[in-house]
Amino acid sequence: MGLSKVGTQMSRMTGLRSLMEDVASAMATTTGTRWLNLSIGNPAAIPEVTTMWREAAGWAVADSFSDAVAYGASRGAPALVNAIADYFRRHLGWNIGPENIVVGPGSQMLCFAAAALFAGEDGSGARRIGLPAIPDYTGYQGICMVPGGIAGAESGWRVGADRSFHYELDLDATARRTDLGMLLVSSPCNPTGRSLRTDEQDALIAIAERMDIPLFLDHAYGRPFPQIGPTFAPPVLHPHVVNCFSLSKAGMPGERVGFAIGPERYITPMVSFLSNSVLHASGLAQAMAARALSSGALDEVVASAIKPFYAERRTLTEKLLLDAMPADVNWRLHANEGGMFGWLWVDEDWFSDVDLYADLKKRGVFIAPGRSFFSGPLESGTHSTQCFRITLTVDEKDLREGIGRIGEVIGAASPHRVGSRPPLSL
Amino acid sequence: MGLSKVGTQMSRMTGLRSLMEDVASAMATTTGTRWLNLSIGNPAAIPEVTTMWREAAGWAVADSFSDAVAYGASRGAPALVNAIADYFRRHLGWNIGPENIVVGPGSQMLCFAAAALFAGEDGSGARRIGLPAIPDYTGYQGICMVPGGIAGAESGWRVGADRSFHYELDLDATARRTDLGMLLVSSPCNPTGRSLRTDEQDALIAIAERMDIPLFLDHAYGRPFPQIGPTFAPPVLHPHVVNCFSLSKAGMPGERVGFAIGPERYITPMVSFLSNSVLHASGLAQAMAARALSSGALDEVVASAIKPFYAERRTLTEKLLLDAMPADVNWRLHANEGGMFGWLWVDEDWFSDVDLYADLKKRGVFIAPGRSFFSGPLESGTHSTQCFRITLTVDEKDLREGIGRIGEVIGAASPHRVGSRPPLSL
Repeated sequence: MGLSKVGTQMSRMTGLRSLMEDVASAMATTTGTRWLNLSIGNPAAIPEVTTMWREAAGWAVADSFSDAVAYGASRGAPALVNAIADYFRRHLGWNIGPENIVVGPGSQMLCFAAAALFAGEDGSGARRIGLPAIPDYTGYQGICMVPGGIAGAESGWRVGADRSFHYELDLDATARRTDLGMLLVSSPCNPTGRSLRTDEQDALIAIAERMDIPLFLDHAYGRPFPQIGPTFAPPVLHPHVVNCFSLSKAGMPGERVGFAIGPERYITPMVSFLSNSVLHASGLAQAMAARALSSGALDEVVASAIKPFYAERRTLTEKLLLDAMPADVNWRLHANEGGMFGWLWVDEDWFSDVDLYADLKKRGVFIAPGRSFFSGPLESGTHSTQCFRITLTVDEKDLREGIGRIGEVIGAASPHRVGSRPPLSL
Repeated sequence: MGLSKVGTQMSRMTGLRSLMEDVASAMATTTGTRWLNLSIGNPAAIPEVTTMWREAAGWAVADSFSDAVAYGASRGAPALVNAIADYFRRHLGWNIGPENIVVGPGSQMLCFAAAALFAGEDGSGARRIGLPAIPDYTGYQGICMVPGGIAGAESGWRVGADRSFHYELDLDATARRTDLGMLLVSSPCNPTGRSLRTDEQDALIAIAERMDIPLFLDHAYGRPFPQIGPTFAPPVLHPHVVNCFSLSKAGMPGERVGFAIGPERYITPMVSFLSNSVLHASGLAQAMAARALSSGALDEVVASAIKPFYAERRTLTEKLLLDAMPADVNWRLHANEGGMFGWLWVDEDWFSDVDLYADLKKRGVFIAPGRSFFSGPLESGTHSTQCFRITLTVDEKDLREGIGRIGEVIGAASPHRVGSRPPLSL
């Protein structure tokens, strides 16, 4: 049959996605095992949040069904576009109009469109998608239709006096490049929870400005919603910045609604791209989103349910890890600045993220190996193979049991232990 | 800022889309004009159909809300994938499983994915999207990310004894090509209403087989739903055929649900493409679709409401055209084999589709000029500039008035008339 070059690239499952297949397949085919799946990226099912969205859905079906199920505008339903403009005027004082807004079926699709529009071959050569804060969201690697089209800058880190550590952006590595078509960074970050400081965000904007390329800031976990954890730099209006927002982590991932706000010269081609591919996001989902933004219901559940839930979960997770992880293993947890994950680094030569995955699978637990969130070539025994991600969003009981088994498995694998087995290999 | 080559291509509005902007802008900014918009592609708002979908939506919100709003599988929600397999087993006797099915946010997105996967650069050169039955759906031109990536074969025609005409595929033109990566054809066709005969479909399959490329059959207007008008060749299971289906013309365009059925080797990369870009279609919309397929409610409204509505509209339109169109102008209407449009050909040297658009706009009527549905270079006074499309789906009153004014404007433009003005130019 033959796939095109783009086809060969896009028919790959990125690292984490193929693992997710393994998870789904194991969970579907094994009977008698109660799997503890700490690998997932689903937001927590918080009852108040589900209720809020269900009410918004009921309203959309009752009040605007005929409009919602008809073809709509590729920029987004006017009611939602106006609700977004109004919301950001009220919350951040932004003076924006429809020309600055594009709604899409999820912010991943918007990033995919941006990657096609602003990176890839142009008249002068291949322009890459710059990821200035590796490790970062694994899905960014999937949006690139060109082999080798990702240029990641791996972060350094500083360690805390306690069990914490924190990534430090290698801004020079990004600034030195001459082949970038866009920059893309999640803040707060999936998987690490790192949030850009204002000085880092300003430095990235300055780089984008000098290169005359757009900087895409992905606020999927941040402000103004869902505010999962504290953040530093707020979204910013700037001639070289496109801000991406998502309702997924505010409890509606399956409905696929995200939007981008930025300069018209970047937004307009994104609208055209949608109009040539997916047309627009679901009309009912857009009506639900407009309702939740305008009525204040989204802000209410963010303040009353989402923020407290994740703050409590984070505190619990830190306590559980301190209890469960072996004291004689040099492990660290990334500082908490948002995101719904725990990002652990086991700074030991013998440790391998994929071995941990395999060992934990035998114990009925799934975690996400860290290597999928790095972009460069991997070398075993280095940082990019020594990290893993756990979700904070499963049932508390599963979280307790899962972290307990993680501690046991890492303890058993550690050569510090008398009688432990030799180092694992993939 | 600089767009990539793909970006330059994808940020274009295809011909018809830029006209739609003109339509929307005129309708939004003009006060006091009651516009008769016969240019639209929206299906008719048939009350029984809307009621059926509203009930399905109510059921989805009440019964499967939590599942529906969570992240789902990129192949499609298992409930919908299973409902599709079961539906086609019952209706067409197909023995298919999940591996043969992919659900996406609209069949246009599925065609976009297919174009990226199966056409474009491969190791040996540029492979094009073959459109073997031009004129065909204008959106097919938008899905191609490569300039010059469309290879259309313009159809010939035979004329009827009455005012009808019928396109005849130039199968040899398609068979001669050596640069195709896929074939794509709508049947019944938007805009013309042409339906592939079984011998034509078989010939296209034979070409696809010989070239070892997939033939995408777009059944958006056909069987088993929405059955807008009679069709000849049914969907077919074949190692080189991918069948695309859509719920848009069955009354749910805004929810963006389509699906493809075909061999696993073509379906699998399409699932991966979705997983790397848009993730999946709306969960609630998928739940609605599963319900409508499984309960028989969709089949009921197809039989009781959709088929009769369009049959009646078609009969009415033919009568209105015979009454309104000038007898001394050589105009013809494409034979009725499905589709929700009337496709007219004014076989006169002086006639131009875009002049008609401009003249009718002054009279408060919008039509879709035909040239957007052709793929080659245009020459005025030839067939590709002498056609236009009208929708059958507007209010009956608007249809009557609109067709009346079309007849008047064409009559006034005709040089056969004493005192008429000279030929129009764009």
